Amino acid sequence: MTYPYLLPVRDMMFVIEDWLDALSTWRAVPEWADLDMATVEQILSEAGRFVAGRIAPLNAIGDAEGCRFDNGDVFMPTGFVSSYRAYVEAGWPLLAADEELGGQNLPGLLEVALHEMLAGANHAWLMSPGLSHGAVACLKAHASEEIKQAYLAKIASGEWLTTMCLTEPQAGTDLGRIRTKALIDEDGNYRLTGEKIFITGGEHDLTENIVHLVLARLPDALPGSRGLSLFLVPKYLPSANGMQRNSVTCDGIEKKMGLKASPTCTMHFDNATGYLIGQAHGGLRAMFVMMNAARLQVAMQGVGHAESARQRASAYAEERVQTRTPSHAGDDAPTPISHHPAIRRVLLDLRCTSEGERMIGYWVGEWIDKAARHPNRAERKQADAMASLLTPIAKAFFTANGFNSASNALQVFGGYGYMQEYGVEQTVRDSRVSMLYEGTNEVQAVDLVLRKVLSDRGETLRSLLSIINEESAALAKTGENGAQISVVLSTLCFEMNEITSAVIERSEDDKELPYRVADAYLSAAGWLLLSFAWARTWRICVSRSGTDPFHADKISCSQYFFDFKVQEFFHCRRQVQACMDSRIPVLRSGRA
Amino acid sequence: MTYPYLLPVRDMMFVIEDWLDALSTWRAVPEWADLDMATVEQILSEAGRFVAGRIAPLNAIGDAEGCRFDNGDVFMPTGFVSSYRAYVEAGWPLLAADEELGGQNLPGLLEVALHEMLAGANHAWLMSPGLSHGAVACLKAHASEEIKQAYLAKIASGEWLTTMCLTEPQAGTDLGRIRTKALIDEDGNYRLTGEKIFITGGEHDLTENIVHLVLARLPDALPGSRGLSLFLVPKYLPSANGMQRNSVTCDGIEKKMGLKASPTCTMHFDNATGYLIGQAHGGLRAMFVMMNAARLQVAMQGVGHAESARQRASAYAEERVQTRTPSHAGDDAPTPISHHPAIRRVLLDLRCTSEGERMIGYWVGEWIDKAARHPNRAERKQADAMASLLTPIAKAFFTANGFNSASNALQVFGGYGYMQEYGVEQTVRDSRVSMLYEGTNEVQAVDLVLRKVLSDRGETLRSLLSIINEESAALAKTGENGAQISVVLSTLCFEMNEITSAVIERSEDDKELPYRVADAYLSAAGWLLLSFAWARTWRICVSRSGTDPFHADKISCSQYFFDFKVQEFFHCRRQVQACMDSRIPVLRSGRA
Repeated sequence: MTYPYLLPVRDMMFVIEDWLDALSTWRAVPEWADLDMATVEQILSEAGRFVAGRIAPLNAIGDAEGCRFDNGDVFMPTGFVSSYRAYVEAGWPLLAADEELGGQNLPGLLEVALHEMLAGANHAWLMSPGLSHGAVACLKAHASEEIKQAYLAKIASGEWLTTMCLTEPQAGTDLGRIRTKALIDEDGNYRLTGEKIFITGGEHDLTENIVHLVLARLPDALPGSRGLSLFLVPKYLPSANGMQRNSVTCDGIEKKMGLKASPTCTMHFDNATGYLIGQAHGGLRAMFVMMNAARLQVAMQGVGHAESARQRASAYAEERVQTRTPSHAGDDAPTPISHHPAIRRVLLDLRCTSEGERMIGYWVGEWIDKAARHPNRAERKQADAMASLLTPIAKAFFTANGFNSASNALQVFGGYGYMQEYGVEQTVRDSRVSMLYEGTNEVQAVDLVLRKVLSDRGETLRSLLSIINEESAALAKTGENGAQISVVLSTLCFEMNEITSAVIERSEDDKELPYRVADAYLSAAGWLLLSFAWARTWRICVSRSGTDPFHADKISCSQYFFDFKVQEFFHCRRQVQACMDSRIPVLRSGRA
Repeated sequence: MTYPYLLPVRDMMFVIEDWLDALSTWRAVPEWADLDMATVEQILSEAGRFVAGRIAPLNAIGDAEGCRFDNGDVFMPTGFVSSYRAYVEAGWPLLAADEELGGQNLPGLLEVALHEMLAGANHAWLMSPGLSHGAVACLKAHASEEIKQAYLAKIASGEWLTTMCLTEPQAGTDLGRIRTKALIDEDGNYRLTGEKIFITGGEHDLTENIVHLVLARLPDALPGSRGLSLFLVPKYLPSANGMQRNSVTCDGIEKKMGLKASPTCTMHFDNATGYLIGQAHGGLRAMFVMMNAARLQVAMQGVGHAESARQRASAYAEERVQTRTPSHAGDDAPTPISHHPAIRRVLLDLRCTSEGERMIGYWVGEWIDKAARHPNRAERKQADAMASLLTPIAKAFFTANGFNSASNALQVFGGYGYMQEYGVEQTVRDSRVSMLYEGTNEVQAVDLVLRKVLSDRGETLRSLLSIINEESAALAKTGENGAQISVVLSTLCFEMNEITSAVIERSEDDKELPYRVADAYLSAAGWLLLSFAWARTWRICVSRSGTDPFHADKISCSQYFFDFKVQEFFHCRRQVQACMDSRIPVLRSGRA
C-alpha cells in the first residue's frame, strides 16, 4: 500500500505569489517583466502532472530493481530510460536555460520548484539530470568557444548527461589530495589517468554520450587544492567520422543504503582525452560554480523528502483507526490516529518543516535569480552575497530535517512503517545521502562560519537580520497576536546578532572556535529562517482573513510553530554558547 | 571494509563492579551471596568471545542474504542454524534460568549484558532467542503444571523457540481489536482460528518445534482488551506417537527496512490446537509478563547499537586522514579526522550515550533482580515499582538514541557511510525497528506518564529523585568540580519534581495533558538518568585518581557531558512546559 505523490502546487504558488511576491522582482528584469502568475501556475501544474504521472510511479520500482552493472555497462531500472527521454522531449531541462541554447529563459526559481517536485517524487531519478544545470553554468563561465559549440546545447537540452568527477579514495572533503594526472600530448590535447569514486551517473544507458567534468593535476601543479585543473572528458569524442570511444571506463557501481536507482560509479581514466576548462590550476574555482548550483538543489531534496514524508504520514494517519483519543475518553467510537496528540505533533512538525523550508528555499532561488539578472549591479552583488550566505544553511539544515522528517513520518506508521511496502522507509534511506554529498553538512557549517560570516565580519548576516527585522516591524502593526510574534522574531534577530558578534570577536584568539561552534551556529540560523518564514506567513494569511481553510491552517501552523518549535532556536543558541565557552576534550585511550 | 565488534568487557565490569556495586545487592540474596567479580568477568569474557567469534561475523551476511520463504517454510541465512545450535549447546540461554530448569541461576543482570552484546554484534540474530526469557517468565507465572512439564525446560534451554502472537492487521497498538477466535472442542481442547501479522520467528529452521503464545478471543468474551485470552499453540504437538503437526502455517515473510535475518511472519491459525495459559479473559495480564521482560531487552538493543556505532565511527575516524585540523592550522601535516572538532563532538556524544545508557540499563536489570529475589518483601515491592518506572524510559529513550547514534556515526564516515561495505548503514536500518516494536516509543511515553507517574501521584518518581539527590550529596563532598556537578544534578531533580507536580495537578482538569506532555516528559527523564549516570561516574573515577587512561577518559566524558549535553534536559523541560501551556491545533483542511 503506497500513497501517490501529490503536487503541492497551491503551496508552491502561495510561496511564489504571496510569500516572495516574485512579480515585484521579475518586473525589474526585462526578460521576465511580462511573466504573470497564471503562466507560472500553468507551468508548475504541467510539470507536476509529468512528475506525478511518469516519475513518481518509478520510485519504488527503482529501489527494488536498482541499477545493473555488466562488464563496464550500466543499465537503469525499468522505465527510467523512456521517462528520461520523455522529460527531454518535453523540454523540461531547458526551462530556465538561455534562449541561445534553445532554452525558455524562465526564472531559475521555477527550476528550483521543479527539482523539489522531482526529489519528492523520486530522488534517485533526479540524480541523473540533476547535475546538468551546474555543468551548463560551469561551461558557460569557463569553457572555450570551441567546447561551448560542441557541448553546451546538447548538455542544456538533456541530450547528453554530465558528471562531476572529484572524489578519489583518499580525497573526499580534502580535494587537495586528488592524484588523477593530466599530461599534454603532441597534439596539445590533454590525457588523463586516474581513478575516481562515488561518481553519480558515471555510466548508464540514458543518453548516447556522457560528459565528465574531472579535477586532475597537471605536471607542474602545486601540491594541494591550488594545483587542480578542470577538464572535460567525454565518454565519446565527437569527430568528423562520428563518435569515437574515449578511454574512460566504469569499473563497478556501489551498493548503497538507498538511492539504488542512481548508479554510483568507480571511473577509470586511462590516458583519456580531455579538454582544459578555464585556467590551468584554476580547477577548483571553476568547479565551484557547479558545486554551488548543486547545493541549493540538494537543499531542495530535503524539502522534497519532508513533503513526501508529510503526505504519506498524513494520509496514513487519517486512515488508520486504533485506540480512542484522550479527548474522546468517554466515547468508545474508534478514531483515526491523526487525532492523537503525539501524532498531531508529528504531522504539524512535518508541515512546519516542509512548508517553511519551501519558503526559504525558493527565497534563495530568488536571490540567485536576482544575482544573475537584476539590471542594477549593486543589487546583483548584494543578492549574490545573500545567496552565498543562505546556501550552506539551506543545504545542511534542510537535508538534516529531510532525514528526520522521514524518520518521524515512519514512526506514524508504527510497525507498518518498517515494511518496504509503505514506501516511507525508502524515503528514510534515500534522504540520508543528502547530508553527505556536495560537501557534508559539517563542511557546510564551516563554510558558513568561516567564508560567509567571518570573512565579511558579519556584514551579510546583518543584512539578513535587517530584512527579518523589517518583517518584525510589519508584524507589529497587525494587532495583538502579530505583535507577540513580532517580539519573538526581534528577539531571535537580537540573539543571532549577539552570537555572531561573539563568534567574530572570540575567534581572533581562539582559532578552533569557528569549527567548534559551526554546527550549532548553522542550526540556529536555520531556525531563525524558519521563524521568519512562519512569521511572514502568519501576516499574509491573517490579512486574507477569509474562510478558506488553506489560510486558516497556515495560521494554525504558524501559531503552533511559535508555541512549540521556536524554542529550538534558543536551544541552538545555548549550544553555540557552550561551544564558545568549553573545550572538547581529546580522549587519551586509543580504544576503539 | 567492516570493523569487528569488540567486547566492551572492561566497560561492562566498570558498571557492574563500580557503578552499581552489584556485590552489595548480591550479598543480600542467598543464591548469589558467593558470587564474585572474577567469576562475573570470566562469564562475560567467555560470552564475549562467543559473540565476537560466532555471531558478529554473521551480521553482514544475514543482512545481504535475508531469510528465504518457500512454500510455508522459512530458511535462515548461512551460519545462523549452526551458530544457534552452538549457542544452545554452550548453555547460554540457561545463564539466568532457574536451577530446576537446568539453569545456572545467575543474576538476570548478566543476561542483560549478554543481550547488549548480542544486539551490538548482530541484532537480527538476537531476535530468534530474544523472546525465550519472557516466554519462560510468562509460563512459569501462568501455565498449568502439565504445560510446564511439557514445554518449560525445552524453551528455557533454547531447544524450542517461542513467538508472541499479538498483532493483527487491524490490531496493533490497540490489542482490543484482536479478532482471532478460540473455541472449545469435545475433548476440552481449544481450537484457534485467525491471522496474525508481524510475528518474529513465526517460522524458521533453527529448532525442531516453535511454540506460539497467542492472544485470542473466546466465544463469551467481552469486546475490547478485557476479552482476550492467552493460548499456547505449538507448531508440533508432542504426543506419545511422536510429534504431530498442528494447523499453524506461515503465509509469508515481510520485506523490511532492516533486520533482514529475522523472519517477520504472517501466521495462519486454522482450527489449531491450543492450551489456555492463565485465566480465561486474563490474556493481556499474562502476556504483559512477557512484554515487560522484552522491553528492557529492546532498550539494550539501543545500547548495543550505540556501542557498535561508536566502535565503527571511532575506528574509522582514527584511520581516515583528510584536511588539516584547525588546531594545527600552521602545519601541513595530515591528521586523522578524529581531531576535527565536529568529529570529536560526535565521538564524545556516542560515548556519553552508549556508556551512560549501559549504566542505567544495567541498573534497571539490577532492580528487576531485586524485585525477583530480594529476601525482604518491601524491598522487592519498591524494586518492582522502580523497574516499572524505569523500563518505559529506557525502552523509548535508548532506542531513539540508538538510531540517532547510528546515523551520527554514519556521518563520521562521510560518503563511505552510505555504502553497504562499511556496515554502519546496516546499523541505522536495523536500529530503527526498536523504536516501533514492543509498544511504539509514543506508547511507552503514555505508559510512563499515565501508569507509572499519575497512577501513584509521583511517589515512585520521587523515590528515584531521592536516589539521585543522594548522589548529588555525595558529589558535593568531592571538591570544587564535584560540587559544580552536584549543583547541576540537584537542579535537574528540582526541575523534574516541579514538572511532575505540575503535570499531576494540571491533568485533573485537562485530560489530554498527559498525552501532550508524554514524549517530552519521557525525554527529560532520560536526560536526568544520563546525568545521574555521568555524575556518579565522575565521582567514582575521580576517587581513583590514578594514571589509568580508562578513568581519565571517563572523567573527560563526564565533563563533556556536563559542559555540552546536560542542556538537553532543560530543553525537554521547556518542551514539557510548552505542551502544558499550549494546545496542539487540529487542522481543518483534509489535504494530504
